[in-house]
Amino acid sequence: MKVREIGEQGLLKRLQSFCVPGMLGDDAAVLATPPGEQLIVTTDMLVDGVHFSDRTTPPDAAGWRAVAANLSDLAAMGATPLGITVGLSLTGETEVAWVEQLYTGMRECLQRYDSGILGGDIVRSPLKAISITALGSAPLERIIRRNAAQPGDAIVVTGVHGSSRAGLELLLHPEKGENLTESDRHSLIQAHQRPQPRLDILPLLWDILPSQSAIAGMDSSDGLADAIIQICQASNTGASIDRNLIPASPALTQLVPPPQALQWALYGGEDFELVLCLPPQVAQHFVQRLPSATLIGKITPETEISLVDPQKKYPDEPLSLNRGFQHF
Amino acid sequence: MKVREIGEQGLLKRLQSFCVPGMLGDDAAVLATPPGEQLIVTTDMLVDGVHFSDRTTPPDAAGWRAVAANLSDLAAMGATPLGITVGLSLTGETEVAWVEQLYTGMRECLQRYDSGILGGDIVRSPLKAISITALGSAPLERIIRRNAAQPGDAIVVTGVHGSSRAGLELLLHPEKGENLTESDRHSLIQAHQRPQPRLDILPLLWDILPSQSAIAGMDSSDGLADAIIQICQASNTGASIDRNLIPASPALTQLVPPPQALQWALYGGEDFELVLCLPPQVAQHFVQRLPSATLIGKITPETEISLVDPQKKYPDEPLSLNRGFQHF
Repeated sequence: MKVREIGEQGLLKRLQSFCVPGMLGDDAAVLATPPGEQLIVTTDMLVDGVHFSDRTTPPDAAGWRAVAANLSDLAAMGATPLGITVGLSLTGETEVAWVEQLYTGMRECLQRYDSGILGGDIVRSPLKAISITALGSAPLERIIRRNAAQPGDAIVVTGVHGSSRAGLELLLHPEKGENLTESDRHSLIQAHQRPQPRLDILPLLWDILPSQSAIAGMDSSDGLADAIIQICQASNTGASIDRNLIPASPALTQLVPPPQALQWALYGGEDFELVLCLPPQVAQHFVQRLPSATLIGKITPETEISLVDPQKKYPDEPLSLNRGFQHF
Repeated sequence: MKVREIGEQGLLKRLQSFCVPGMLGDDAAVLATPPGEQLIVTTDMLVDGVHFSDRTTPPDAAGWRAVAANLSDLAAMGATPLGITVGLSLTGETEVAWVEQLYTGMRECLQRYDSGILGGDIVRSPLKAISITALGSAPLERIIRRNAAQPGDAIVVTGVHGSSRAGLELLLHPEKGENLTESDRHSLIQAHQRPQPRLDILPLLWDILPSQSAIAGMDSSDGLADAIIQICQASNTGASIDRNLIPASPALTQLVPPPQALQWALYGGEDFELVLCLPPQVAQHFVQRLPSATLIGKITPETEISLVDPQKKYPDEPLSLNRGFQHF
């Protein structure tokens, strides 16, 4: 059954069950924000064939990833999700089942973080596209910003990098995974199709952090190198990153040789981990309490951003913005 | 100069001046909501060739209309705007000037209502599309909803209908406007390209309305008939609309004969007026204070929704949802 056969009203009726009850049926959604907290808002647009594709992401995975990307932006600001709105453009030939699977994936990801779909808009188009706006809230003093890094801060990542890029490679070229175990193959593909926004680390961070500390951070959705560069540029600092400390999953190092794994970890993107700049003692505490987290370097007063090798096997090299994902 | 020549970073730099200062540069925007008020959120997606076109809407008009549609949804809920986010998909071949004119139109409309652009996302796509999410706020007891209409309520529209559809006709077939004065032609085209969301009527409404009254309403973006039907269906009521009272502009009645003018007024859409269901005395007060407003009928206990003629020149006829704008 195709979208044009049931029309807009028919489609909306079917999608109602995926949304927060009582939200649809008016011109806009109504929600309460926690008293005294700031509203945090982020928008992502995803286009068929550019940001998702039936070849590598079945519709439920496309839905999960679209939501995860937005929730990751909230996590990067230190915010707790309130809900999302969904703008969806569809061709009349789109299968209704495709749309329902997309919403199933969106709902699964949202439910894991106690959130839901508040409303949206569905329109006809020659091309499928998804635009999600995520709303969250945070106390003003806990908002994480890019421009708050201080020289001497330790740079911590909340998890491994490069796995999403490796998962994409396995989806595009399954033969490359022939030497992997089924479990390794699955873990890389899951990293690409079902990334986990790191909202889970926020309570731990607030638990460790002294109450007046402003910390810097962002997510690594456009690549780990991009995140480090954006933070440094916004904070007018540099950074020194130890190339031996950048964490990759065992499955990734099984799949490709170390230089390739490092490239994917730095420039592959879409790992949706957080990159945080923390006072050294806080950072030590944080990596002790969060086993997936790793200290990879430090913020420096000069504005150079270098990948260094304390063992001096490799020369220092600057991190580059250009190898990351470029939108045009 | 084309978008692909300056890239994403170059484009973002140019668009920064169109946005609320200090909002860009993080993963999400931060804003304060008025204490004690509810957050109101609405999303609209607009696709090149479906919802806007360089043939009938230059980019500044497309930007204005996209914002106006969203602010109209806020007005329909009784909400005051806090700001918008913009998701924009562009081809690499899009002229940078086109994008800047789009943002100029968006900003002009927002500034008229003391609002601004909070953030967004710009992505590459084979097709131009705009997704706007508007945020507003309102005290809980003043939120206007579709499901609150009561039998006996007077149905009031805040302005003329059919002009946007007429303006579109003049843009597609300029020769049809040959008998109009320049000022009439201009007013119809403006109604299509620069519609005014009726946020202006809210202070008047709160001034007249007793404090505990819940009122029903929505905007007429999908057509006046559609708005009346949606309100009646949500409220489980009917309506009786006097066909002789539906207001059309003098320019519209100059352009087409009365039956055509009535069709456009009922089903043309995109007039972005408000359709309000008010206790009769409040309605009388409202139309006295707001010269553009007209009382066109009343909410009835039976679920029929009829267009009637007290002069009995025309038989009663049911209003139809199917003649309105269908999205698939």
